[in-house]
Amino acid sequence: MNSVSVGILGFGTVGTGVVHLLTQEQEKLQQQSGSNIHIEKVLVRDIDKTRKINFADNRLTLDPDDILDNPKIDIVIEVMGGIEDAKNYIFKALKNRKHVITANKDLMAVHGTQLLETAADYQCDLYYEASVAGAIPILRTLTDGLSADRIQKIMGIVNGTTNYILSKMNRESVSYEEVLQEAQVLGFAEADPTSDVEGLDAARKMVILSHLAYSVPVTLEDVRVEGITEISQEDIHYSKKLGYTMKLVGISELDDPYIDIRVSPTLLSSNHPLAAVENEFNAVYVYGKSVGETMFYGPGAGELPTAIAVVSDLISVVKNMNLGVNGHHIFLPKNEKKCKSPDSMKNQYFFRMHVQDQPGAFSKITSLLNERRISLKQIIQEPIPKQQLAEVVIITHAIEERIFKQTYQQLKDLDVVYDVKNYYRVEG
Amino acid sequence: MNSVSVGILGFGTVGTGVVHLLTQEQEKLQQQSGSNIHIEKVLVRDIDKTRKINFADNRLTLDPDDILDNPKIDIVIEVMGGIEDAKNYIFKALKNRKHVITANKDLMAVHGTQLLETAADYQCDLYYEASVAGAIPILRTLTDGLSADRIQKIMGIVNGTTNYILSKMNRESVSYEEVLQEAQVLGFAEADPTSDVEGLDAARKMVILSHLAYSVPVTLEDVRVEGITEISQEDIHYSKKLGYTMKLVGISELDDPYIDIRVSPTLLSSNHPLAAVENEFNAVYVYGKSVGETMFYGPGAGELPTAIAVVSDLISVVKNMNLGVNGHHIFLPKNEKKCKSPDSMKNQYFFRMHVQDQPGAFSKITSLLNERRISLKQIIQEPIPKQQLAEVVIITHAIEERIFKQTYQQLKDLDVVYDVKNYYRVEG
Repeated sequence: MNSVSVGILGFGTVGTGVVHLLTQEQEKLQQQSGSNIHIEKVLVRDIDKTRKINFADNRLTLDPDDILDNPKIDIVIEVMGGIEDAKNYIFKALKNRKHVITANKDLMAVHGTQLLETAADYQCDLYYEASVAGAIPILRTLTDGLSADRIQKIMGIVNGTTNYILSKMNRESVSYEEVLQEAQVLGFAEADPTSDVEGLDAARKMVILSHLAYSVPVTLEDVRVEGITEISQEDIHYSKKLGYTMKLVGISELDDPYIDIRVSPTLLSSNHPLAAVENEFNAVYVYGKSVGETMFYGPGAGELPTAIAVVSDLISVVKNMNLGVNGHHIFLPKNEKKCKSPDSMKNQYFFRMHVQDQPGAFSKITSLLNERRISLKQIIQEPIPKQQLAEVVIITHAIEERIFKQTYQQLKDLDVVYDVKNYYRVEG
Repeated sequence: MNSVSVGILGFGTVGTGVVHLLTQEQEKLQQQSGSNIHIEKVLVRDIDKTRKINFADNRLTLDPDDILDNPKIDIVIEVMGGIEDAKNYIFKALKNRKHVITANKDLMAVHGTQLLETAADYQCDLYYEASVAGAIPILRTLTDGLSADRIQKIMGIVNGTTNYILSKMNRESVSYEEVLQEAQVLGFAEADPTSDVEGLDAARKMVILSHLAYSVPVTLEDVRVEGITEISQEDIHYSKKLGYTMKLVGISELDDPYIDIRVSPTLLSSNHPLAAVENEFNAVYVYGKSVGETMFYGPGAGELPTAIAVVSDLISVVKNMNLGVNGHHIFLPKNEKKCKSPDSMKNQYFFRMHVQDQPGAFSKITSLLNERRISLKQIIQEPIPKQQLAEVVIITHAIEERIFKQTYQQLKDLDVVYDVKNYYRVEG
C-alpha cells in the first residue's frame, strides 16, 4: 500500500480533531482511501503550548514553508482560519502542486473562485466541505447527489451561535442580552460575537452554497444581511402565538436568471422542516425543481464533526491521487450572475405596532393596507394593560418588498399609531 | 463535446421521469457531465401504449438485446423493477462492458454484492442511489460525505406508504384498515400492499444502507421484520399521550463487531429528528461516532425525485468515463459480518394491558416487573368506562429483549391481568 504525506496548517480546535482522526483511525482511513496517510508536519504558533493530544514535537513547526515548500508533502490541510495568511499559503501550496483541503468559510466566500481557478490551473484538488454546516455533506449534495436537478431555493440555518440564542429565547422568556451572556460563558458564543449575531458568518456560507447551487460567481456584496440583535422577547412571543418559530435564516432564491440572497431573522411556519432545528444544530433546506423539498441536518461545528468533514475530503483527494484524476472535480461558476432587485421580491411579512386603544383605530390601519393592496393572513389585537394602547400584530400575504416598506413608513404617520415595532419576513 | 449513448430498461413511472429529464434538460446535463447524453433505445412491454410523454417510436423496443448487445450503447439504466429479468439483464450489460445505473432496491438487497463484484471485474460502474429513499443522496453520504467516520446507528423512515398511513392514523382517529383503503384510492398504497405494510420494502433498504455503513455483506435474512398491520388506534392514542410518535422505523446498529438490523413499529420521542417526518416523506438518521446526530430528509419516491437520483448517478458515470476511471468507485463489503443475538439487545418498551380494576392489581404487576429488574419510565392507568377493567400503559427503561419477552408472557398469567395487548420498541 502506498503512502501519502499530509501537512496541517493550524492546531486549534479543528486541527486537533484532524490530528486525532489521522492518528487514531488509521485502519479505517486505509480501508476507505487505499493508502497509508501520514502527518509530516503541523504548523503551530507556539511549539511548547500544552495540547489536548500528544503529538511528536519534531513534527511541529513555526515555519509555514516547512509545509508549503516540503517536497515530501502531497496534501495541505488548512484549518488555521483568518483570510490573508491562509490565502497566501493556499496559493503557494497549489503552485507547488499540493492538493488542498480547507475548512475556511471566510476565505472561500471571499476568494473562492480565484482559489478554485488556481487549483484547476495546477491540476490540484481543492475541497472545502467543512466550510459550510460542519459535518453535513451539503456541498457534495449540491454538486453530486442533486446534480441533475435545478435548485430553486436554499434555506439555511447555518450559524450555530444564533440558533442557540434564538432557541433559548423561544423556550424561556429571556432577553437577547441575557442569553448572549450565558452563551458566551458556555462557549457557544465568541467574546466578540459580531460576526455571528450580525449574520455575517451565515452570509459567507450562503455565498458558498449559492455558488454551487446556481453555478454563478456570487460575492459577499450580493447578500443582504440583517442580524438578530434587535429581536425582542415580544417578537418571539407573538411569533409563537401565530404558529411560527423565529430563526436566523439564509435564503437564496433563483428566479431564473435572477438570484436573490439574504440572511435575516425569519418566522418559519411550525410545519416547515427547518422550524424544529434547535440549539447549535445546523440544517440546510434545498428545494429543487424536480425533487421538491429536501433537508440535511447535523452538527454545524465542533472539533470532531468538522474534522470528519475535513478527513472525508482527504479520503476523496487520496482516492483521486490513486486514480490520477486530481483537479478534475473543481466546480467553477459557469453561468452569468444577475441579481434581482430586492424591491421586486415578494414576501410575507410579520409586523407589530402599538396603536391608540380607541374606536376606529384598527379600521384606519386596515384601510391604509387595503389601499396599498396588502392583504392580511393573520391578525392579533390585544389591549396593553395600564396603557391606553393596543398591541397589533399582523402577518400579510405575499407582497412586493418595495410596497411593504413604503406602507410601513406611512403607518408611522397615522395619528392612531403610537409606535411601529420590528418587521420580519415570514416563510411557509 | 463527445457524446454518450444510453439504453433504458423500462418506461414506467421512473422511466418516464428519466426520459423527461434526458430530453428536457440537455443543456444542464451537458454542463454537469461534460458530454451530450443521448437516449438510443428504451425497452418497453407494449410499443403502442399511450404514454405521458412523446418519444420517437423507432427508439422503443421489445427486445432487451437491442440494448444489452447494442455496441452503440455505453450505459444501461434499469428502471423496470422485479428481480429475475432485471438481474439477468444487468449481468449481461456488465459483461458487455456497459455501465449500469439501477433504481431497483429489491434486486440490490438480494443480489447486490454479486452484481457489484461483477461490475468491478469488468471495470464497469454500478450506481444505485435511487434504490433507497428516492431523491435523498444517502448512499453517497455514507460512502463519501461521512467516509471518515464510524457509523454506529442508522434509523430510517424509508417506506412512504406506511409513513403515510401512520401519519394519518396519528392525526385523525381512524383505523389502519380505513386509512389503507383511502391510501389505495389515492395511489399512496399498492393494490397488494403486503411488501410495504409488512415491512419488507423497508427491510430491503436497510440491507443496502447497512452494507454501506458497516462494509459488511448483509442479507435480507439478517433483518428481523415486523409490519404495521397490528397497530391499533389505542396504541397510537397512548403513544401520543406519553409524548411519542408511532413510526415504522428500520434500525441498524453496530455494537462492534456485531450488527443488529430490524424493521418494526417504533415509538419515537417527539424531540427525535425523525418524529416530525410526515406523510409520504422519507428520512434517514445517521449517528456517527465523531459526527453525532445527522439526518437527511426528502421525497422517498415519485417520478421526478427518483429520476433525479438516477440521472445524478448518470452524470457521475459520464464524468468517470471522461476521466477513464469507471469501476473504481464500487463499494464492496470489506469486513466480516457478525450478527448480534437479538436476545441480548437492550431496548425500551411500550406495552399495554387490560387489568382488573381492583385494589392491589397494579401492585401485583409492578412486583413482577420489579422481580425481573424491569424499571419503569412512564405509566398511565385509566379506568375503562362500563367495564370492571383498567387500561395500563407502561414504558420501561432499557432492558434485555430476552427478559422483556419472558416477562411479557408471565404478565399474561397473572390473575389480575385480563388481557395483554401489543408491545413496541421505544427510541429516544
